[in-house]
Amino acid sequence: MEYRKIKDEDQPDSGPVDGDIESSRGKSPAPISSSIAALGAGPQWKRKTIVTFALTFLTSSQAILIVWSKRAGKYEYSVTTANFLVETLKCFLSLAALARTWKNEGVTEDNRLSTTINEVSVYPIPAALYLVKNLLQYYIFAYVDAPGYQILKNLNIISTGVLYRMILKRKLSEIQWAAFILLCAGCTTAQLNPSSDHVLQTPFQGWMMAIVMALLSGFAGVYTEAIMKKRPSRNINVQNFWLYVFGMAFNAVAILIQDFDAVMNKGFFHGYSFVTVLMILNHALSGLAVSMVMKYADNIVKVYSTSVAMLLTAVVAVFLFGFHLSLAFFLGTTVVSVSVYLHSAGKPPR
Amino acid sequence: MEYRKIKDEDQPDSGPVDGDIESSRGKSPAPISSSIAALGAGPQWKRKTIVTFALTFLTSSQAILIVWSKRAGKYEYSVTTANFLVETLKCFLSLAALARTWKNEGVTEDNRLSTTINEVSVYPIPAALYLVKNLLQYYIFAYVDAPGYQILKNLNIISTGVLYRMILKRKLSEIQWAAFILLCAGCTTAQLNPSSDHVLQTPFQGWMMAIVMALLSGFAGVYTEAIMKKRPSRNINVQNFWLYVFGMAFNAVAILIQDFDAVMNKGFFHGYSFVTVLMILNHALSGLAVSMVMKYADNIVKVYSTSVAMLLTAVVAVFLFGFHLSLAFFLGTTVVSVSVYLHSAGKPPR
Repeated sequence: MEYRKIKDEDQPDSGPVDGDIESSRGKSPAPISSSIAALGAGPQWKRKTIVTFALTFLTSSQAILIVWSKRAGKYEYSVTTANFLVETLKCFLSLAALARTWKNEGVTEDNRLSTTINEVSVYPIPAALYLVKNLLQYYIFAYVDAPGYQILKNLNIISTGVLYRMILKRKLSEIQWAAFILLCAGCTTAQLNPSSDHVLQTPFQGWMMAIVMALLSGFAGVYTEAIMKKRPSRNINVQNFWLYVFGMAFNAVAILIQDFDAVMNKGFFHGYSFVTVLMILNHALSGLAVSMVMKYADNIVKVYSTSVAMLLTAVVAVFLFGFHLSLAFFLGTTVVSVSVYLHSAGKPPR
Repeated sequence: MEYRKIKDEDQPDSGPVDGDIESSRGKSPAPISSSIAALGAGPQWKRKTIVTFALTFLTSSQAILIVWSKRAGKYEYSVTTANFLVETLKCFLSLAALARTWKNEGVTEDNRLSTTINEVSVYPIPAALYLVKNLLQYYIFAYVDAPGYQILKNLNIISTGVLYRMILKRKLSEIQWAAFILLCAGCTTAQLNPSSDHVLQTPFQGWMMAIVMALLSGFAGVYTEAIMKKRPSRNINVQNFWLYVFGMAFNAVAILIQDFDAVMNKGFFHGYSFVTVLMILNHALSGLAVSMVMKYADNIVKVYSTSVAMLLTAVVAVFLFGFHLSLAFFLGTTVVSVSVYLHSAGKPPR
């Protein structure tokens, strides 16, 4: 059961995702689409700030939904089918937004759906990387328990930073690198519990798998950013459409590999509840936010955003579910806060 | 019994202490005194580096001695008598170094022992502050257990930084302040153990006492630095002599208050062992190193030096005593290392 929880928490990356949700709600699209339109038109830092906050908010509400659904004891659906629906929903929302754009602006070079093999050939790569990573996830539990895996997942922070530097050739200042190491250490500290030391007994194979998974996840994120930014004027919804089409395809493969029997015997929607539907909706919206962050900000912003969301979640859980905060959590939060400050204070001069 | 351990670990501050140990060993003074002479003559950064390393080395070997003596099960001596002997030894070493200076250079304005009421009136203050702090230490255990107190002691780092800024008016850059917060969080993280969360249940009075003690300790350190630096050309051994004379006096008071009965019934040296003698020697030398750091470097260097020593001790204890390092220790060490880097990278431009 535990691995499902983890898989779900991974969801915001689990298919490279997209952004423009305008006109997606049939009945009352006006306020959302107009605010999104304003977002597109506003100055760059403003758009960047808004998508960052949206991602932080959606990621933390996601974790809250996971806790809620766990406490309700409902976790019997197939995660692969939910992932498939998330990809489908994102694909549909992107198409709906596109349709609206076509109606308003007409079809142009930048927003037409049809494309070249050359352009489209890169889109399956992130989805394929996530598929491999998600499959590996089922094997790593032979070496690490679930809380240990949560701790090892913080390696993603480091791998994202390193690959961001290597592949996108973007520079971080030395202070920003220091901040990034602190972010990783702070997030891990905040998650410490009395049994965390087990993770140090992880066998060599477990470490290797964790590192490979961190690299796959980091590489998928960085690659998505490269795709989104390669054609800056290309409409984000077209880019998303292609990403999500491949996301759907790869998640269909995952259903066949992992949950074929369950779906055949109990049906595609077995075990779905109201919370499940909310979670799918939330994952789809977070996915769109991630995509916007990739287009308008970068992977570093995404990592900070989801890390801060993790801490916010814990604070909210205190009020909602009466959780207790540990001393380790306070210390980790302090370190992460200083890291956020240093990332901004350490900006290299332009 | 536990409070004794803690008291001993506090020892490096427990009387404001001094530096020049030349000629202190009767039989073979030549190598030490010549290296100390070279130290005095060398460039400032070199002297600063050497005293910093000496303090780090002495502080960590001190903690090793404490663990050793605990494991040998010998802890039955009166701590106040040991403290008194430490002050006496430091006073004697300072006088011996002074005698040598007089022989070589003659008595000058800067190295004569006699002084004015105006100059000497400030010397009792640090010793008095430490006495109050050490007495408070016996009462705080009504509210906090010993491991909890070890954690609360990290408040010293913050209080030293704040008082350093307020009293000595020396500026730290924003990056250096961030580094200082990280140092406190990192040291605390490194000390976390499964029962550390108890400290969050500390009652209000316990917190208040911990804060007052941190302020007393920070104030004593900053005040000592102010005294040592007020007359830069004044011979450090004269300054130390006066500090330690008052240290002896206040520790004599502490014997009367805390251990009068034990000393009367069992004798001044009851329970002393070989390790006890080594510890007294080590405390005296650390004390001299602290004094040199105060004169030639500053309180910030002292705090970093003793924090790094704490981490070194744990690593050495792994080899000597087969201790295990926790994940929290690794994370704390990472944060402290980044803090050391940031403190140096964040130096304000001159």
